[in-house]
Amino acid sequence: MPYELFYWPGIQGRGEFVRLALEAAGADYVDVARGHGPGQGVKAMTALMAQAPGPFAPPFLRDGAVLVSHVAGILGYLGPKLGLAPVDEAMRLYAQGLQLTITDFVAEVHDTHHPISTALYYEDQKAEAKARATAFLDHRLPKYFGYFERALAGNPAGSAHIVGEQLTTVDLSLFQCWVGMGYAFPRAFADADARWPKLSALAASVARLPAIAGYLASDRRLPFNEHGIFRRYPELDRAAG
Amino acid sequence: MPYELFYWPGIQGRGEFVRLALEAAGADYVDVARGHGPGQGVKAMTALMAQAPGPFAPPFLRDGAVLVSHVAGILGYLGPKLGLAPVDEAMRLYAQGLQLTITDFVAEVHDTHHPISTALYYEDQKAEAKARATAFLDHRLPKYFGYFERALAGNPAGSAHIVGEQLTTVDLSLFQCWVGMGYAFPRAFADADARWPKLSALAASVARLPAIAGYLASDRRLPFNEHGIFRRYPELDRAAG
Repeated sequence: MPYELFYWPGIQGRGEFVRLALEAAGADYVDVARGHGPGQGVKAMTALMAQAPGPFAPPFLRDGAVLVSHVAGILGYLGPKLGLAPVDEAMRLYAQGLQLTITDFVAEVHDTHHPISTALYYEDQKAEAKARATAFLDHRLPKYFGYFERALAGNPAGSAHIVGEQLTTVDLSLFQCWVGMGYAFPRAFADADARWPKLSALAASVARLPAIAGYLASDRRLPFNEHGIFRRYPELDRAAG
Repeated sequence: MPYELFYWPGIQGRGEFVRLALEAAGADYVDVARGHGPGQGVKAMTALMAQAPGPFAPPFLRDGAVLVSHVAGILGYLGPKLGLAPVDEAMRLYAQGLQLTITDFVAEVHDTHHPISTALYYEDQKAEAKARATAFLDHRLPKYFGYFERALAGNPAGSAHIVGEQLTTVDLSLFQCWVGMGYAFPRAFADADARWPKLSALAASVARLPAIAGYLASDRRLPFNEHGIFRRYPELDRAAG
């Protein structure tokens, strides 16, 4: 029985953090809302959301009788099953903390283009978006990526992975944050390899994993676009440094 | 060995969601950063944060060799130990999804007074805060609280609790969101009892729990103030409806 992932079709968005874990593990899964057969498509997703109790928002994952929502929740559930989580409890909880920190980071990236309201178009909050994006690039990005860089440097097992000596969902999610930033803010991110060398090396090593390289080259990997979390609006970008 | 909670002293903030769980269960805990003895105070907290690997931000909880961060992470860890989580796995994951939805709600409440940057004072982003608060009250609050109300109505075990037939950390957190909204937006929230009657009844029943009533009357319960998540800025409030 394949895992069933439910997420908006047409964007990487938050669903991509789950896709990367499923793909890295070679798991059998269906991307339900992107399908067109019976029981597939967006309607199958919104029908589940209309149930009470149902999930608040995509992404969510169904595994038999279990329905689990939110990126960190889904990855906390899948990690041990896919061999992408530490076995030791203290380490697993540390990885969970990193994953929840990534959740916060992703929400802040989203708000660089929607600082006032998700009910308004970007074009209707452009000035505020410029102010928020500038504050994000000046203060928040260095705070988050500096933290992940220190966590990599402080990993007693070495900086090939952020937790322990094996690939976890956190490594995969950091890869997505890294390439997402490079897409959305290419000018501000131009010196990223020098600023956060261990994070840069981690992202590169994830991209080289055969399962991930195969996925990135496939049509299952949607391109970045201006409907997702990481959006390229040149007017929000600025010179590096 | 008592649980050690680490959070900024002087505010309820995100730490309060953890305090409510510890208090409801009558757990033995130390609110480390509020203490003044050896190994206590804010310095004890920031020392742990300076470690790599350490937590990104408060709140975090230490339980012997385990360090767990983020409200949803801490409550996911404590819930089963304190008897405040469903035993059934599917139900526990559903409760986790609700808890993570509350995390998102709390972040949005915070951004009503800081929509541009946490590095700026509220006074320097007041106009943007008014726009974001209005959008929050118009669109986001009804979306979240409407969802929780439907979840209560849809609970097969009845609407005395949001998951199953026993008190969980989610009930306690919803109480905090409810009283927080009443503090921050008293005018907009004036008709809340009529709009979300089951949520209102849940909040009232949590406040009547002997352990919680005792806590709320104690000096361990800090008052709401304009440094926390829920802030009363009358200019951000508006008439109900």
